[in-house]
Amino acid sequence: MAAAGLRPEAGSPQWAPAERDPAAAARPADGEDAPVRPLCKPRGICSRAYFLVLMVLVHLYLGNVLALLLFVHYSDGGGGPAAPRRAPGPPPAPAPAPLARLEGIKVGHEQKVQLVADRDHLVRTLSLKPLLFEVPGFLRDEECRLIVHLAQMKGLQPSQLLPTEEFEEAMGAVQLHPLDLFRLLDRNHDGRLQLGEVLAQTRLGSGRWMTPETVQEMYAAMKADPDGDGVLSLQEFAAMDLRDLRTFMKRHRAESGELVRNSHHTWLYQGEGAHHVMRSIRQRVLRLTRLPAEVVELSEPMQVVRYGEGGHYHAHVDSGPVYPETICSHTKLVTNESVPFETSCRYVTVLFYLNNVTGGGETVFPVADNRTYDETSLVQDGVDLRDTRRHCDKGNLRVRPQQGTAVFWYNYLPDGQGWVGDVDEYSLHGGCVVTRGTKWIANNWINVDPSRARQALYQQEMARLAREGAADAQPEWALDRAYGDARVEL
Amino acid sequence: MAAAGLRPEAGSPQWAPAERDPAAAARPADGEDAPVRPLCKPRGICSRAYFLVLMVLVHLYLGNVLALLLFVHYSDGGGGPAAPRRAPGPPPAPAPAPLARLEGIKVGHEQKVQLVADRDHLVRTLSLKPLLFEVPGFLRDEECRLIVHLAQMKGLQPSQLLPTEEFEEAMGAVQLHPLDLFRLLDRNHDGRLQLGEVLAQTRLGSGRWMTPETVQEMYAAMKADPDGDGVLSLQEFAAMDLRDLRTFMKRHRAESGELVRNSHHTWLYQGEGAHHVMRSIRQRVLRLTRLPAEVVELSEPMQVVRYGEGGHYHAHVDSGPVYPETICSHTKLVTNESVPFETSCRYVTVLFYLNNVTGGGETVFPVADNRTYDETSLVQDGVDLRDTRRHCDKGNLRVRPQQGTAVFWYNYLPDGQGWVGDVDEYSLHGGCVVTRGTKWIANNWINVDPSRARQALYQQEMARLAREGAADAQPEWALDRAYGDARVEL
Repeated sequence: MAAAGLRPEAGSPQWAPAERDPAAAARPADGEDAPVRPLCKPRGICSRAYFLVLMVLVHLYLGNVLALLLFVHYSDGGGGPAAPRRAPGPPPAPAPAPLARLEGIKVGHEQKVQLVADRDHLVRTLSLKPLLFEVPGFLRDEECRLIVHLAQMKGLQPSQLLPTEEFEEAMGAVQLHPLDLFRLLDRNHDGRLQLGEVLAQTRLGSGRWMTPETVQEMYAAMKADPDGDGVLSLQEFAAMDLRDLRTFMKRHRAESGELVRNSHHTWLYQGEGAHHVMRSIRQRVLRLTRLPAEVVELSEPMQVVRYGEGGHYHAHVDSGPVYPETICSHTKLVTNESVPFETSCRYVTVLFYLNNVTGGGETVFPVADNRTYDETSLVQDGVDLRDTRRHCDKGNLRVRPQQGTAVFWYNYLPDGQGWVGDVDEYSLHGGCVVTRGTKWIANNWINVDPSRARQALYQQEMARLAREGAADAQPEWALDRAYGDARVEL
Repeated sequence: MAAAGLRPEAGSPQWAPAERDPAAAARPADGEDAPVRPLCKPRGICSRAYFLVLMVLVHLYLGNVLALLLFVHYSDGGGGPAAPRRAPGPPPAPAPAPLARLEGIKVGHEQKVQLVADRDHLVRTLSLKPLLFEVPGFLRDEECRLIVHLAQMKGLQPSQLLPTEEFEEAMGAVQLHPLDLFRLLDRNHDGRLQLGEVLAQTRLGSGRWMTPETVQEMYAAMKADPDGDGVLSLQEFAAMDLRDLRTFMKRHRAESGELVRNSHHTWLYQGEGAHHVMRSIRQRVLRLTRLPAEVVELSEPMQVVRYGEGGHYHAHVDSGPVYPETICSHTKLVTNESVPFETSCRYVTVLFYLNNVTGGGETVFPVADNRTYDETSLVQDGVDLRDTRRHCDKGNLRVRPQQGTAVFWYNYLPDGQGWVGDVDEYSLHGGCVVTRGTKWIANNWINVDPSRARQALYQQEMARLAREGAADAQPEWALDRAYGDARVEL
């Protein structure tokens, strides 16, 4: 195992664009869709492998096998799969208690819950795959307005930036045998690359959303598909020159509507000392999910997102895939091992609608309750079900924003032992384009490490640091208390 | 509530055909598909209502709403729905502990279980709707042969008999206003009865399997559809004369292939004192399902079924619907109330394949893991997905018989409180026609009353009777110990 060749290097800016914002340094990746973010010292085999891994991993969750193949191929010269990680450092903490999981029963089932003292809430099952619920009136209207106000006071940043020039230059340095790449991309093994295979498996656009048309434009720029049928033979593929791609990308500057994600967002602290409404919402989430308090309290702060008219977020999953080599953003500080794959580990997503949207802006679950999940069938006959600018109407399930309503779902399947198992592919979801007005939402993610031991260690460490008052060692967001005493007139 | 007009009368043979076999008296209905079996003293409004209820209830699980409507309509003159039943008799027993339910995780998931001392078994998830698993090698080959042998020694009876003449005569006495019946049958409220509505909602055939062709033949015999388009207007419907139907039915004698179920079966005792292999299998089922021993021990004996060449069982569910007025066959002895609807209450079905079938004989789950369940879509464009003689190839999931393999599934959804809730409509399943050779299977059903209180009372009563040695008061099958000491050379 040459895993040591893939070493994290927090300070190398060209490899971790999100870290250019110092306040975001210890946060989970908030650019694009918070996917896997490999960290790597750019040297030797690693630098060559790195681009490929990154190129594919931008949407790794849509190409798990491919990414793992590439990783294994480049990190140990094609040897066997990586050995499972063991929790490093101090003696193992006691295994955390099983994680609760609400029962969905069946679509339309309603259960009553008490989240606040003065009223009951109804939890309605929207789908079983993913396990998805809605809770009307989770937030009061004045709470919604307060959150928007706090976010505006703090200021919002673009949710996605295009890669820098350094990144684009790194792309030029890649040397991978075309035959190997072709084999990896050719999912159906017919010796030809269909448009769907290219769209579903790779994100050569690295942050730009690729459509059948843009891939064809790219092919044209690279003279890759002389017969113009959108299908590449191995010969056509091998004849491509990545430098042409780079030139094309440089010339073709992406507009915001061509990005994977077109919104602005910020983070609001919910820990001790936070605004009482923010605290109260955290308590409600705790009651709703029935998860241990230490799990919920050690999760990410609230993300508040504004989609302007034309804003969207193409369909994605909120957590990266579970590989032995994967490490979670929220627990990485308790591991001193090299970190080839870093990803957000979000057991539950709670999404709050903060306003009523005049036009569009639904949350779409394109494959909810599908009989089977097949990533290649997401893109068929020129229809990409993940495309929330064009094809939201074809998704299986759409939730219309309703001020104060919360929807929540599980991003992981259970493992059968009371812990999280594999990522639930059916949790694929996106934000449909806002056709009129502005859309405000907030997200609460509950972070759980698929390694039960590492989650235990993390909780143990955080408890120790809290006892010792070592606030500096806590995640960055825990320090963001500026608005804790805000008095807002609404 | 005129429920008192619908009184059980165990001794009136024309109303309970299964009871003509004295040994079967206290068993769950084993004719046809063990469905709802109303018991009724044939007098007054009851006798008139009874035929209609029975006529429809033969496949009640495929026409829940209709049956309930008819029941309510005829038992209290069209008043409101029935009040929930309370457990009658002695003071309430303590509520039983929550019922275990294996986690399916996702299709293809495998979990290891230890059912016997000398080896592990794999439990593989086949579908989530219904929650369905397979366990290869659950039985050893010699155990399969033993079960077949014990069943042959005991003797098998036809699984379905056609209604007697008395029954057919009762049909003639029915007087229901055609408009009311028409409205009940016209599911899509378009003022016309499509073939699919007739096939999906009623079993006018009362045990005969109706196909689009047989319904058309029936219409022709009753001169009910002069324009021959297979669709009845209200006028055409109102002009029908049920006596014509009776004459037609009498002339048209059903062949075995035209029945709902075409097989022979018998029951094998598994309680204390039974053959050690039968005991051992019960213990394995107990370990597999993780259900309380008293629930498993008080369940039905093993049903062994032989399908000859041409044998089949059209798709059905193993439990009746859960209405307030429903009573379970297994717990009825602890209630002294009138019993308008009696049904089998089978929380789990464990189906064992006892041999390898030369041709056909798969178990089909036509709608397994469908995104939605819609009973009218089961019959479309002349294709009835429940028809296991014609359309098994169009079902979502087929399990091929493999000697020694067990499949098991849950016939009820959970209720979210650790007990059974509604019947899981996705559990619809059938036996595909055996095209070559013979098919031997066995069923173990685990009976749970949807009324937690009644199940508790039943367990309490059975424990008391066992303590007092009152074997006579136990279910009939518990007395069937004849083969307990069988020594079989295989």
